[in-house]
Amino acid sequence: MKLYNYFRSSASFRVRIALQIKGLDYDYVPVNLLKAEHLEPGYAARLGDALVPALETDDGHTLGQSMAIIEYLEETHPAAPALLPSDALGRARVRALAQTVACEIHPLNNPRVLRYVVRELKADDAAKTAWYRHWVRNGLEAFERQLTLLARERAQAGLPPSVYCWGDTPTLADCCLVPQIFNAQRFDVNLDGLPQTMAIHAACMALPAFQRAQPSACPDSAA
Amino acid sequence: MKLYNYFRSSASFRVRIALQIKGLDYDYVPVNLLKAEHLEPGYAARLGDALVPALETDDGHTLGQSMAIIEYLEETHPAAPALLPSDALGRARVRALAQTVACEIHPLNNPRVLRYVVRELKADDAAKTAWYRHWVRNGLEAFERQLTLLARERAQAGLPPSVYCWGDTPTLADCCLVPQIFNAQRFDVNLDGLPQTMAIHAACMALPAFQRAQPSACPDSAA
Repeated sequence: MKLYNYFRSSASFRVRIALQIKGLDYDYVPVNLLKAEHLEPGYAARLGDALVPALETDDGHTLGQSMAIIEYLEETHPAAPALLPSDALGRARVRALAQTVACEIHPLNNPRVLRYVVRELKADDAAKTAWYRHWVRNGLEAFERQLTLLARERAQAGLPPSVYCWGDTPTLADCCLVPQIFNAQRFDVNLDGLPQTMAIHAACMALPAFQRAQPSACPDSAA
Repeated sequence: MKLYNYFRSSASFRVRIALQIKGLDYDYVPVNLLKAEHLEPGYAARLGDALVPALETDDGHTLGQSMAIIEYLEETHPAAPALLPSDALGRARVRALAQTVACEIHPLNNPRVLRYVVRELKADDAAKTAWYRHWVRNGLEAFERQLTLLARERAQAGLPPSVYCWGDTPTLADCCLVPQIFNAQRFDVNLDGLPQTMAIHAACMALPAFQRAQPSACPDSAA
């Protein structure tokens, strides 16, 4: 497999974590977003949406959208460790948490959106930063409230407290959360008052899979 | 089951389509976003993120995030019609198309984002409309390019051309596409030059499931 990706891309980071958790070998193909390499015809023609990451499978298919890629990896490599719980309710919980990051937070803060906010809506630096922090903070507060509800649900069902987003192994939800926290830290978002979220982040970052997938461990991070 | 939703909410519409395709009975509980009923303590406490839709299952669990809900409905009601293909590659294709709408287009245009663009970034009506149309048009163009690539992939694999987003029955991807087209039409987005996308939309809207789920068929649409 080949992963077309960029060290700092949050969606790329999600897939790298999943590949590391599953212990899958892959070729790292850097696509430098700052140099607009994702817009070059060869890359854009591969996927249709010219976004990173893209996973090229061994049988020559190119897959886009990080959550879809992670589900594909899980389905085609079902041997443990699993990236999704074995029950439908657990999977719904994990997917909803992942989508809270991937549909509610991250889309508002990716580079092309920030560019529009600055160029078209004439936001100055302060307004751009306020925009970024607003959506990340708001989204993470909603994430934390969901964790509180899920902790109650688990207690009522007689399940042990979660170590990660859901249960005692990392899932798709953790693959999405951790890159979002990295982004938040880069932009100095206030992360106070999010004890469950940050405890999960710390638990994830104690794992070699997350360490090996992080931006600073990527071959293109020095470029 | 109870679906807490709003007739005009695009994410609500996705789930209504899925429920109709699967032929599942549910109670329609209107949550009027214009009256901020989703922010009332009783509703917000239910879900953590105070968004619509929320599905309350018969065993008392409340599920959020439309794509997660649709996957849950498919898993807990696997009898045909299926909302996802039976093979991993097909599912990856469908999920990626769904996420192109749900992660790349819709998050930029929901009411709270438009409100921020107007109130905080001081966008006037023209700038707000331009913002809306830009992201919808850009996203649908990427969607159309993906359909072109997928059509080629199916031809190479000896599969018949798709009638819907992927294959000859509607899937999660169609559940996401159709509400997005409704939104685009409401905001007069230019939909020229998207022949595959619009043919799929027309094919979907010829089906009773999509007709019954559409905003004008909802009990709260007259309110």
